[in-house]
Amino acid sequence: MYGLMQEHALALPLVFHRVERYFGHKRVVTGRVGGETTATWADVCARTRRLAAVLDRLGVPGGARVGTFGWNSQRHVELYLAVPCTGRVLHTVNHRLFHEQIRYIVDDAADDVLFVDRSLLPAVWPPVASLKSPRHVVVMDDGADVPLPDDPRILDYETLLAEVTPFDGEFAIADENAAAALCYTSGTTGDPKGVLYSHRSMVLHTLLLLMVDTFGIRERDVVMPIVPMFHVNAWGLPYAAMMCGADLVLPGPAMRPAELISQLERHRVTFTAAVPTVWRSLEPLLAGHDLSGLRTIICGGGPVDDALSRSYQQAIGIPLTNAWGMTETSPVVTVARPATVHDGLDPDARRAVIGSPGPAAPLIELRLIGEDGSEVPWDGTTPGELQAAGPTIAARYVGEERPGPAFTDDGWLRTGDVATIDGHGYVRIVDRTKDLVKSGGEWISSVELEGAIMADPRVAEAAVIGVEHPRWGERPVAYVVPKPGADLTPDDVREHLIAHVARWWIPEQVLFIPEIPKTATGKFAKRQLRLQHRHDGPPAE
Amino acid sequence: MYGLMQEHALALPLVFHRVERYFGHKRVVTGRVGGETTATWADVCARTRRLAAVLDRLGVPGGARVGTFGWNSQRHVELYLAVPCTGRVLHTVNHRLFHEQIRYIVDDAADDVLFVDRSLLPAVWPPVASLKSPRHVVVMDDGADVPLPDDPRILDYETLLAEVTPFDGEFAIADENAAAALCYTSGTTGDPKGVLYSHRSMVLHTLLLLMVDTFGIRERDVVMPIVPMFHVNAWGLPYAAMMCGADLVLPGPAMRPAELISQLERHRVTFTAAVPTVWRSLEPLLAGHDLSGLRTIICGGGPVDDALSRSYQQAIGIPLTNAWGMTETSPVVTVARPATVHDGLDPDARRAVIGSPGPAAPLIELRLIGEDGSEVPWDGTTPGELQAAGPTIAARYVGEERPGPAFTDDGWLRTGDVATIDGHGYVRIVDRTKDLVKSGGEWISSVELEGAIMADPRVAEAAVIGVEHPRWGERPVAYVVPKPGADLTPDDVREHLIAHVARWWIPEQVLFIPEIPKTATGKFAKRQLRLQHRHDGPPAE
Ligand SMILES: Nc1ncnc2c1ncn2[C@@H]1O[C@H](COP(=O)(O)OP(=O)(O)OP(=O)(O)O)[C@@H](O)[C@H]1O
Ligand SMILES: Nc1ncnc2c1ncn2[C@@H]1O[C@H](COP(=O)(O)OP(=O)(O)OP(=O)(O)O)[C@@H](O)[C@H]1O
Ligand SMILES: [Mg+2]
Ligand SMILES: [Mg+2]
Repeated sequence: MYGLMQEHALALPLVFHRVERYFGHKRVVTGRVGGETTATWADVCARTRRLAAVLDRLGVPGGARVGTFGWNSQRHVELYLAVPCTGRVLHTVNHRLFHEQIRYIVDDAADDVLFVDRSLLPAVWPPVASLKSPRHVVVMDDGADVPLPDDPRILDYETLLAEVTPFDGEFAIADENAAAALCYTSGTTGDPKGVLYSHRSMVLHTLLLLMVDTFGIRERDVVMPIVPMFHVNAWGLPYAAMMCGADLVLPGPAMRPAELISQLERHRVTFTAAVPTVWRSLEPLLAGHDLSGLRTIICGGGPVDDALSRSYQQAIGIPLTNAWGMTETSPVVTVARPATVHDGLDPDARRAVIGSPGPAAPLIELRLIGEDGSEVPWDGTTPGELQAAGPTIAARYVGEERPGPAFTDDGWLRTGDVATIDGHGYVRIVDRTKDLVKSGGEWISSVELEGAIMADPRVAEAAVIGVEHPRWGERPVAYVVPKPGADLTPDDVREHLIAHVARWWIPEQVLFIPEIPKTATGKFAKRQLRLQHRHDGPPAE
Repeated sequence: MYGLMQEHALALPLVFHRVERYFGHKRVVTGRVGGETTATWADVCARTRRLAAVLDRLGVPGGARVGTFGWNSQRHVELYLAVPCTGRVLHTVNHRLFHEQIRYIVDDAADDVLFVDRSLLPAVWPPVASLKSPRHVVVMDDGADVPLPDDPRILDYETLLAEVTPFDGEFAIADENAAAALCYTSGTTGDPKGVLYSHRSMVLHTLLLLMVDTFGIRERDVVMPIVPMFHVNAWGLPYAAMMCGADLVLPGPAMRPAELISQLERHRVTFTAAVPTVWRSLEPLLAGHDLSGLRTIICGGGPVDDALSRSYQQAIGIPLTNAWGMTETSPVVTVARPATVHDGLDPDARRAVIGSPGPAAPLIELRLIGEDGSEVPWDGTTPGELQAAGPTIAARYVGEERPGPAFTDDGWLRTGDVATIDGHGYVRIVDRTKDLVKSGGEWISSVELEGAIMADPRVAEAAVIGVEHPRWGERPVAYVVPKPGADLTPDDVREHLIAHVARWWIPEQVLFIPEIPKTATGKFAKRQLRLQHRHDGPPAE
């Protein structure tokens, strides 16, 4: 027996027509070096209707991938709307990847057209110039003083928009399971893998972000996604802002800490989100700025370092809020929040609650699987591999005929993260499966060890990797970046650790380097550290 | 090209397993006359697992309707979970309907089993006793001193629960379009019509209620639905509370104003919802109670009377928030809220914004259709028939082979309400199509006229109907209930109106009656007033 409700596809045209109809008066601000551009959502929607006509004019077939290399910008938002609402697939690519990775991804996705911010041409053109697949490369002129390649495929975004008659109908996607967007994983642990989102998964993910107990995005918000729009759709924030009519502030190429913090201040941003490295780089600037408009700072994609969060709490009154997710999970799965059971905790304990991933959003199911393959209890201490299921979670990677080893036989995603979950469903990430250090038969969490090292005020950054050891199997090695001017020795680091971790966790090798190598999304590139350690041997202490 | 995301049904087991896993420690309180019962969600879930086994034991087939006649109570919540999560269809019935309506509805739905609160047996047994279809009638003993009918079909809820081995697996619904619940409309304008919700529509509706810009239900809330659980699933509030882990306070049969207000106070309820008549009946009691826990009072299912809302604002600091919906729409479509464009309004104007229906929630589309069948503009003044589309909106009524006259050719629901929508999407209900008074070729809104009459502090209630008139076609007739002890004449009412409405709206006939007849859901029963007016002629002035 079936319900008698309307068949109505959960598809991105719902987002477009809502922002166009209800929120035309709200704003989209895009930063550029030395200035910014302000538009209304009405402007953005009108230009999206032009862009839809441009895609037709360029002959982009339905279902074809449209690749983008762009900063967080209004034009990128126009692509977020026009590409999926017309039945093509939005393929955002990280311009900070190595050339060979860019070439591999654009080729693998068989992008029919590329849209590239002019300032990114130097990074993007060399790897793609010789590819056959993109029939056109549309340059979005952001004022960068960069020569245009002499190639017949090069077109100009604004010229194309000016030439067409805007599409004036209703966008419609008949099947909510149609592909809407494609994004590759960060490539932290191996080659990037493609995740193909459906309209349904993207609309459901958008709804999740509007709930009080997740991000709580609302009409009154001024949302500034610092997390790049090529990184899992800026965690879905542009779509959430459109669905509820929030103002959107996009940094564009103005991504230096001083530029970011002045945007946060100037627009009285209420909600912002970025990976830990960004918040670490802004911390020294907090004192000089009025950030009293902020209600929530999401620090996601990696662990929150408590020392850093305390600095934020002291400087501007709010700590960092952690969220956990993956490219494979759309990405938001958990968002930290103090529940009624946490009432009465002191500020440090509250900050710790907000600084770990928190409970899963509605619709998403989690479980922890132990080494013997059975579920482990949610007791807050027993670790297991975190697995996820739900309509916003990938079923397999692009190019896989059938789900590969990242998926279980019953269809759940194996996240590759080791976690604990407490009795109230609060997740803590112990480590990546691949980053855990197994020493003398026992596990050491590289993440926890890094946090303990970074709790030392003389330390700017620290990354821990496991290296082979004849007696213990593996031992942790710490790479440490001292704060500028700090007077720090390896012994100081070890001494500091005595109060924070078990004795046998303390690394014999503490190595100072000027900077921790990062992946293109700003994570510690441990794969690179491991290669380097194997290749060079440890740098002199 | 399809997305590669997990197939994962949007179905009510997601709600059950979430509240069981995450929020077992939170509370469900049920009032009874002279007391109350408190349980945890863990208790409720454990009993739901028993109830699931009871349904099997009673041999209720998949897809069969399980009828309920119940107050808002914990047991009713158990039915809300066990019935749809096991693939049966929850059919809540209004015990306040006339016997012939009850008989018609139970028969029309072919309810396989009925669950009845003991205190409701006198209302329910007479019409159903002679029906063939219910094979069992399970009595939920709420302590009422009411004899049990001597009939072999009568069973006891608690005995059944005690006898079974609880279901200990995972509930699963394979197809999200399967029927989950059935509810009949209020029967205000004609015979009640059956609306059959799917799992998908109910889960999506639940998600909508958790958003900041709709009801914003959250873990920290203490939610008290006064709106009955037989009235469109108590507007979805029980499911919303479960999805986010809010405490739920249910009045049970303790529905007298003094009982309701003391529950609101005692449990520091944060969010409550009821129809206008309820809020009118509680208003005289506000002064003596501490309702400072309340953040939102939803007054839905009918217009907010501004005079009443002002009383609330003065007495407890928060006005009434209007919401619009229908049985056919799950029901919530619009929820009032002040947006950024309303910043700077004075308190009276703000109250007016909150007191009208507001903008539609995400996923739901609205349009206004004029008398010529084309869309009318969203200018805040041009009225049209309100039509709705979306995944939470009915496609047709139970028993209709194909969509009937309440649905347009392109599949939208004709709401039967006349409305205006302003440039920001804010809906105002002008009147029901059937209640508009056409006088001298121009429309008079009965709703507006009633509001103007009730703005007089000497008036308790007022209802306006149109009656035939030889010269003007129709003229409005006002039925007025003076406040106890008020010294009021028909001329006083007319004089008061001069300042509020156009001269030609002022009714020649103003008739005093001791009470406005109400429908079973507490709405003004204008159909009855019209019949009475035709039959009796006007009562003596
Ligand atoms: N709150 C968090 N705390 C700790 N780690 C996190 C958190 N959020 C995300 N992560 C890490 O980021 C991973 C998801 O990152 P992403 O999808 O961007 O690619 P990646 O896993 O870094 O790259 P690849 O899968 O290609 O190796 C998670 O699996 C987890 O290891
Ligand atoms: N906020 C509101 N303002 C004015 N009227 C409202 C509001 N909310 C609901 N209503 C009225 O209630 C109606 C929906 O009520 P419901 O589905 O309970 O049954 P009914 O329409 O009263 O009964 P029937 O359809 O059987 O005649 C709407 O169509 C509208 O007329
Ligand atoms: Mg990964
Ligand atoms: Mg109706």
